[in-house]
Amino acid sequence: MIKFVVHNYENYQLLKFDILEGVMEPSELAQIKIPELDHSKGIIISGRGPIWLYAFLTHCLHPHPWLAIYDPRLNGAVVIERHSKKAPKVGNILMIPT
Amino acid sequence: MIKFVVHNYENYQLLKFDILEGVMEPSELAQIKIPELDHSKGIIISGRGPIWLYAFLTHCLHPHPWLAIYDPRLNGAVVIERHSKKAPKVGNILMIPT
Repeated sequence: MIKFVVHNYENYQLLKFDILEGVMEPSELAQIKIPELDHSKGIIISGRGPIWLYAFLTHCLHPHPWLAIYDPRLNGAVVIERHSKKAPKVGNILMIPT
Repeated sequence: MIKFVVHNYENYQLLKFDILEGVMEPSELAQIKIPELDHSKGIIISGRGPIWLYAFLTHCLHPHPWLAIYDPRLNGAVVIERHSKKAPKVGNILMIPT
Protein backbone atom coordinates (compact mmCIF):
# COMPACT_ATOMS: atom_id res chain seq x y z
CA MET A 1 0.00 0.00 0.00
CA ILE A 2 1.26 3.43 -0.94
CA LYS A 3 0.16 6.74 0.53
CA PHE A 4 0.83 10.15 -1.01
CA VAL A 5 1.01 13.62 0.47
CA VAL A 6 1.23 16.73 -1.71
CA HIS A 7 2.93 19.89 -0.46
CA ASN A 8 2.26 23.03 -2.47
CA TYR A 9 4.90 25.71 -2.77
CA GLU A 10 4.96 28.85 -4.85
CA ASN A 11 7.14 27.44 -7.64
CA TYR A 12 6.71 23.69 -7.35
CA GLN A 13 4.87 20.84 -5.72
CA LEU A 14 6.41 18.15 -3.59
CA LEU A 15 4.87 14.70 -3.97
CA LYS A 16 5.91 12.58 -1.01
CA PHE A 17 5.05 8.92 -0.81
CA ASP A 18 5.16 6.43 1.97
CA ILE A 19 4.97 2.67 1.48
CA LEU A 20 2.95 1.26 4.33
CA GLU A 21 4.71 -1.65 6.04
CA GLY A 22 7.70 -0.89 3.82
CA VAL A 23 6.95 -3.42 1.11
CA MET A 24 5.43 -2.95 -2.31
CA GLU A 25 4.70 -5.54 -4.96
CA PRO A 26 5.07 -4.72 -8.65
CA SER A 27 1.49 -5.88 -9.17
CA GLU A 28 0.33 -2.87 -7.11
CA LEU A 29 1.65 -0.40 -9.71
CA ALA A 30 -1.40 -0.62 -11.96
CA GLN A 31 -3.70 0.34 -9.03
CA ILE A 32 -1.79 3.44 -7.95
CA LYS A 33 -3.86 6.60 -7.83
CA ILE A 34 -1.72 9.71 -7.88
CA PRO A 35 -3.39 12.64 -6.08
CA GLU A 36 -4.64 15.62 -8.04
CA LEU A 37 -1.79 17.96 -8.90
CA ASP A 38 -1.35 21.38 -10.47
CA HIS A 39 0.07 20.57 -13.91
CA SER A 40 1.31 24.13 -14.39
CA LYS A 41 4.05 23.64 -11.78
CA GLY A 42 7.16 21.55 -11.61
CA ILE A 43 7.13 18.54 -9.33
CA ILE A 44 9.57 16.90 -6.96
CA ILE A 45 9.14 13.25 -5.96
CA SER A 46 10.37 12.09 -2.57
CA GLY A 47 10.07 8.83 -0.66
CA ARG A 48 11.71 5.54 0.14
CA GLY A 49 10.77 3.02 -2.51
CA PRO A 50 11.98 0.81 -5.34
CA ILE A 51 13.45 2.25 -8.52
CA TRP A 52 10.60 0.84 -10.62
CA LEU A 53 8.13 2.84 -8.53
CA TYR A 54 10.09 6.01 -9.26
CA ALA A 55 10.22 5.11 -12.97
CA PHE A 56 6.45 4.54 -12.96
CA LEU A 57 5.82 7.91 -11.25
CA THR A 58 8.24 9.65 -13.61
CA HIS A 59 6.22 8.38 -16.55
CA CYS A 60 2.89 9.41 -14.98
CA LEU A 61 4.13 12.90 -14.08
CA HIS A 62 5.48 13.67 -17.53
CA PRO A 63 2.92 16.47 -18.21
CA HIS A 64 4.55 18.77 -15.62
CA PRO A 65 6.90 21.53 -16.85
CA TRP A 66 9.77 19.91 -14.97
CA LEU A 67 10.40 16.92 -12.72
CA ALA A 68 13.02 16.35 -10.03
CA ILE A 69 13.88 13.42 -7.77
CA TYR A 70 14.78 14.09 -4.15
CA ASP A 71 18.01 12.35 -3.14
CA PRO A 72 18.64 12.34 0.63
CA ARG A 73 22.37 11.79 0.03
CA LEU A 74 22.52 15.13 -1.80
CA ASN A 75 20.07 16.93 0.50
CA GLY A 76 18.41 18.13 -2.67
CA ALA A 77 16.33 17.18 -5.69
CA VAL A 78 17.91 16.42 -9.07
CA VAL A 79 16.12 17.79 -12.13
CA ILE A 80 15.73 14.98 -14.66
CA GLU A 81 13.46 16.52 -17.29
CA ARG A 82 12.18 19.93 -18.34
CA HIS A 83 9.68 21.05 -20.96
CA SER A 84 9.94 24.80 -20.50
CA LYS A 85 12.79 27.25 -20.94
CA LYS A 86 11.88 28.82 -17.60
CA ALA A 87 12.36 25.50 -15.81
CA PRO A 88 15.54 24.59 -13.93
CA LYS A 89 18.06 22.71 -16.06
CA VAL A 90 18.50 18.94 -16.19
CA GLY A 91 21.17 17.95 -13.68
CA ASN A 92 20.60 20.93 -11.39
CA ILE A 93 20.23 20.17 -7.69
CA LEU A 94 17.36 22.03 -6.02
CA MET A 95 17.76 22.64 -2.31
CA ILE A 96 14.33 22.23 -0.79
CA PRO A 97 12.84 21.97 2.67
CA THR A 98 11.67 18.41 3.36
CA MET B 1 31.34 8.55 -16.28
CA ILE B 2 28.66 6.17 -17.49
CA LYS B 3 29.10 3.38 -20.01
CA PHE B 4 26.27 1.60 -21.78
CA VAL B 5 26.00 -1.82 -23.38
CA VAL B 6 23.00 -2.86 -25.48
CA HIS B 7 21.92 -6.49 -25.75
CA ASN B 8 19.49 -7.29 -28.51
CA TYR B 9 16.92 -10.03 -28.08
CA GLU B 10 14.06 -11.08 -30.29
CA ASN B 11 11.35 -9.27 -28.32
CA TYR B 12 13.21 -6.61 -26.40
CA GLN B 13 16.49 -4.82 -25.85
CA LEU B 14 18.45 -4.75 -22.62
CA LEU B 15 20.22 -1.47 -21.88
CA LYS B 16 22.86 -2.09 -19.23
CA PHE B 17 24.82 0.73 -17.71
CA ASP B 18 27.91 0.83 -15.61
CA ILE B 19 29.06 3.88 -13.66
CA LEU B 20 32.82 3.98 -13.85
CA GLU B 21 34.43 4.40 -10.41
CA GLY B 22 30.93 4.01 -8.98
CA VAL B 23 30.14 7.69 -8.61
CA MET B 24 28.01 9.93 -10.77
CA GLU B 25 27.28 13.62 -10.33
CA PRO B 26 23.87 15.05 -11.27
CA SER B 27 25.67 17.56 -13.52
CA GLU B 28 26.69 14.63 -15.76
CA LEU B 29 23.06 13.89 -16.70
CA ALA B 30 22.87 16.54 -19.41
CA GLN B 31 25.92 15.03 -21.19
CA ILE B 32 24.66 11.45 -21.30
CA LYS B 33 24.55 9.91 -24.75
CA ILE B 34 22.28 6.91 -24.92
CA PRO B 35 23.38 4.40 -27.58
CA GLU B 36 21.33 3.90 -30.71
CA LEU B 37 18.35 1.65 -30.02
CA ASP B 38 15.59 -0.03 -31.98
CA HIS B 39 12.52 2.03 -31.10
CA SER B 40 10.16 -0.71 -32.29
CA LYS B 41 11.07 -2.95 -29.35
CA GLY B 42 10.48 -2.76 -25.63
CA ILE B 43 13.44 -1.93 -23.45
CA ILE B 44 14.74 -3.09 -20.09
CA ILE B 45 17.13 -0.91 -18.09
CA SER B 46 19.64 -2.54 -15.76
CA GLY B 47 22.53 -1.22 -13.69
CA ARG B 48 23.62 0.04 -10.32
CA GLY B 49 22.96 3.75 -10.11
CA PRO B 50 21.00 6.53 -8.44
CA ILE B 51 17.23 6.80 -8.76
CA TRP B 52 17.51 10.13 -10.59
CA LEU B 53 19.59 8.42 -13.30
CA TYR B 54 16.83 5.84 -13.77
CA ALA B 55 14.21 8.61 -13.87
CA PHE B 56 16.28 10.44 -16.50
CA LEU B 57 16.65 7.28 -18.62
CA THR B 58 12.94 6.49 -18.22
CA HIS B 59 12.11 9.91 -19.65
CA CYS B 60 14.56 9.52 -22.55
CA LEU B 61 13.34 6.03 -23.46
CA HIS B 62 9.68 6.98 -23.53
CA PRO B 63 9.32 6.37 -27.32
CA HIS B 64 9.67 2.59 -26.86
CA PRO B 65 6.50 0.45 -26.90
CA TRP B 66 7.20 -0.59 -23.30
CA LEU B 67 9.79 -0.04 -20.61
CA ALA B 68 10.86 -2.21 -17.68
CA ILE B 69 13.33 -1.78 -14.82
CA TYR B 70 15.47 -4.72 -13.79
CA ASP B 71 15.36 -5.31 -10.03
CA PRO B 72 18.01 -7.75 -8.78
CA ARG B 73 15.94 -8.44 -5.64
CA LEU B 74 13.15 -9.80 -7.85
CA ASN B 75 15.46 -11.50 -10.36
CA GLY B 76 13.32 -9.86 -13.01
CA ALA B 77 12.34 -6.62 -14.70
CA VAL B 78 9.20 -4.70 -13.69
CA VAL B 79 7.15 -3.20 -16.52
CA ILE B 80 6.43 0.45 -15.69
CA GLU B 81 4.89 1.75 -18.90
CA ARG B 82 3.38 0.43 -22.13
CA HIS B 83 2.11 2.13 -25.26
CA SER B 84 0.90 -0.91 -27.15
CA LYS B 85 -1.76 -3.49 -26.45
CA LYS B 86 0.69 -6.22 -27.41
CA ALA B 87 3.13 -5.09 -24.73
CA PRO B 88 3.41 -6.77 -21.32
CA LYS B 89 1.23 -5.14 -18.67
CA VAL B 90 2.35 -2.55 -16.15
CA GLY B 91 3.39 -4.33 -12.95
CA ASN B 92 4.34 -7.58 -14.70
CA ILE B 93 7.72 -9.07 -13.80
CA LEU B 94 9.71 -10.29 -16.79
CA MET B 95 12.19 -13.04 -16.10
CA ILE B 96 15.21 -12.34 -18.25
CA PRO B 97 18.76 -13.61 -18.58
CA THR B 98 21.23 -11.02 -17.28
